[in-house]
Amino acid sequence: MVALGGGHGLHASLSALRRVTTDVTAVVTVADDGGSSGRLRRELGVLPPGDLRMALAALCGDDEWGHTWSEVVQHRFRSEGELHGHAVGNLLIVALWELLGDSVAGLDWVGQLLGAHGRVLPMSSVPLDIVAEVEGADPARPHGITTVRGQVACASTRGRVRSISLVPENPPASPQAVKAVREADWIVFGPGSWFTSVLPHLLVPDLADALVESKARRMVALNLSPQRGETDGFRPETYLEVLAAHAPRLGVDVVLADRGVVEDSGPLHDAAKALGGRLVLADVGAPDGSPRHDPDRLAAAFDQVFRE
Amino acid sequence: MVALGGGHGLHASLSALRRVTTDVTAVVTVADDGGSSGRLRRELGVLPPGDLRMALAALCGDDEWGHTWSEVVQHRFRSEGELHGHAVGNLLIVALWELLGDSVAGLDWVGQLLGAHGRVLPMSSVPLDIVAEVEGADPARPHGITTVRGQVACASTRGRVRSISLVPENPPASPQAVKAVREADWIVFGPGSWFTSVLPHLLVPDLADALVESKARRMVALNLSPQRGETDGFRPETYLEVLAAHAPRLGVDVVLADRGVVEDSGPLHDAAKALGGRLVLADVGAPDGSPRHDPDRLAAAFDQVFRE
Repeated sequence: MVALGGGHGLHASLSALRRVTTDVTAVVTVADDGGSSGRLRRELGVLPPGDLRMALAALCGDDEWGHTWSEVVQHRFRSEGELHGHAVGNLLIVALWELLGDSVAGLDWVGQLLGAHGRVLPMSSVPLDIVAEVEGADPARPHGITTVRGQVACASTRGRVRSISLVPENPPASPQAVKAVREADWIVFGPGSWFTSVLPHLLVPDLADALVESKARRMVALNLSPQRGETDGFRPETYLEVLAAHAPRLGVDVVLADRGVVEDSGPLHDAAKALGGRLVLADVGAPDGSPRHDPDRLAAAFDQVFRE
Repeated sequence: MVALGGGHGLHASLSALRRVTTDVTAVVTVADDGGSSGRLRRELGVLPPGDLRMALAALCGDDEWGHTWSEVVQHRFRSEGELHGHAVGNLLIVALWELLGDSVAGLDWVGQLLGAHGRVLPMSSVPLDIVAEVEGADPARPHGITTVRGQVACASTRGRVRSISLVPENPPASPQAVKAVREADWIVFGPGSWFTSVLPHLLVPDLADALVESKARRMVALNLSPQRGETDGFRPETYLEVLAAHAPRLGVDVVLADRGVVEDSGPLHDAAKALGGRLVLADVGAPDGSPRHDPDRLAAAFDQVFRE
């Protein structure tokens, strides 16, 4: 199983996938420019480690060892000083990168430390920036198109993101990620920040080719609610339209959505069909109704789809 | 075996001790106020972790796992920014302290990570400051006495350190360190910065009592050369005189000195005898003549003394 994404969405899909398979590879966006990751990127010229760290933590071993080291890597310093906000795992990953000179080897060492149930790979070997074409970012020109650069700026824009591209254009894919995609049985897109975590993979040429050409079946796991800024006002089918616009050749086998979120499944059913797939509705949201996936419920839905 | 000290001196004694025994406990000074440790102490209010980290690294496992994680914890960031100079292991230790709320438990976790051959304990559970009475720190008054506060200031003073004390006075000892000292077969003092790494243990009341009362035999491993500032102009026997002045009740069984450094062994022999012990001369310095202990040679000397 290969899971694509970044941030909290990927953490959710990995927390579910680890329950149903022993063979998970996460392929993670490396375009973050905010928070601890953004500071490390600017100070040390490295890949942003934060989303990679969260993915590793989601796959940590089930024993006290795995849980403790997972808490350590997720721990953030709080102070009035220079370390404030840095996540310890980000610093650890960067140290291994500096020491070993190899981003994949460094992540594999942290994976070993955590007893990780799977592997975490960067989608590209170079740090990327996301550039978005945004409509109405300037309130004075509600239909004007603006170019917004940087993940933080794109994710928090006041306008509507229409499309994204990467800087540098056509970045090199991680060869290990390409290999994992080509050898996968299933590829899971999302959930997650649609433009800034899920779509970027399709803009890395060698990875996009592998995603299109792989014999794996493809699932798109939709978000539970629109994200303020990035996907404000999205209907469930809008995610699929945007996906198709960024990857016209990509076929999809299954679209997984939360039953409670989809009011009228007709348009979503049609959108899934247009991509060559079918719609699966399941209860995957948290039982308390908060807009986050429940790992056990999501795992049950994954399991059902993978078995069919 | 219990080894007392801090910094590079303790790293040397531990690197030797691990070669001759499987049961080493390091009891480490926690008065550093310089570098990465000093910054962490000021920013986060924690014990200075640097000397504890170096001691753990000296005890790392012999396999690729132990060596790699040892290199990781010893790795320092180099940049123009806020992380410059921080050792990764310092950050890791502090994170564990914040997470577990227990300095000994945090160090034990890092020890487990490294596959450490032994245990590393802080001498006190609270951060300490060293205060020195220094003669001639002010060039205008060559025999005037000045009070100098802080490990960095004491270690680099232009005058001669006459005695030291701790702030806070009478700090609480680490109970695990007291227990280790009381149960030890051998206690090794030094090598290391005499006033700022070796003597402070004798100013922590419960630890000092244990050091005096323990049925263990006691060895003092002398430095190879005076340290600019702190022990400028020291003859080999001066170390013992200063030790006795700070701990009048302490008996010593063996004084170990490098054969090449001691020109006239008479005074040193007498000084050892005055403390109740005997002088052992051996070749323990680096073969190239640089003023650092050779781990294999020091181990051979330790082994010979322990077997007699």
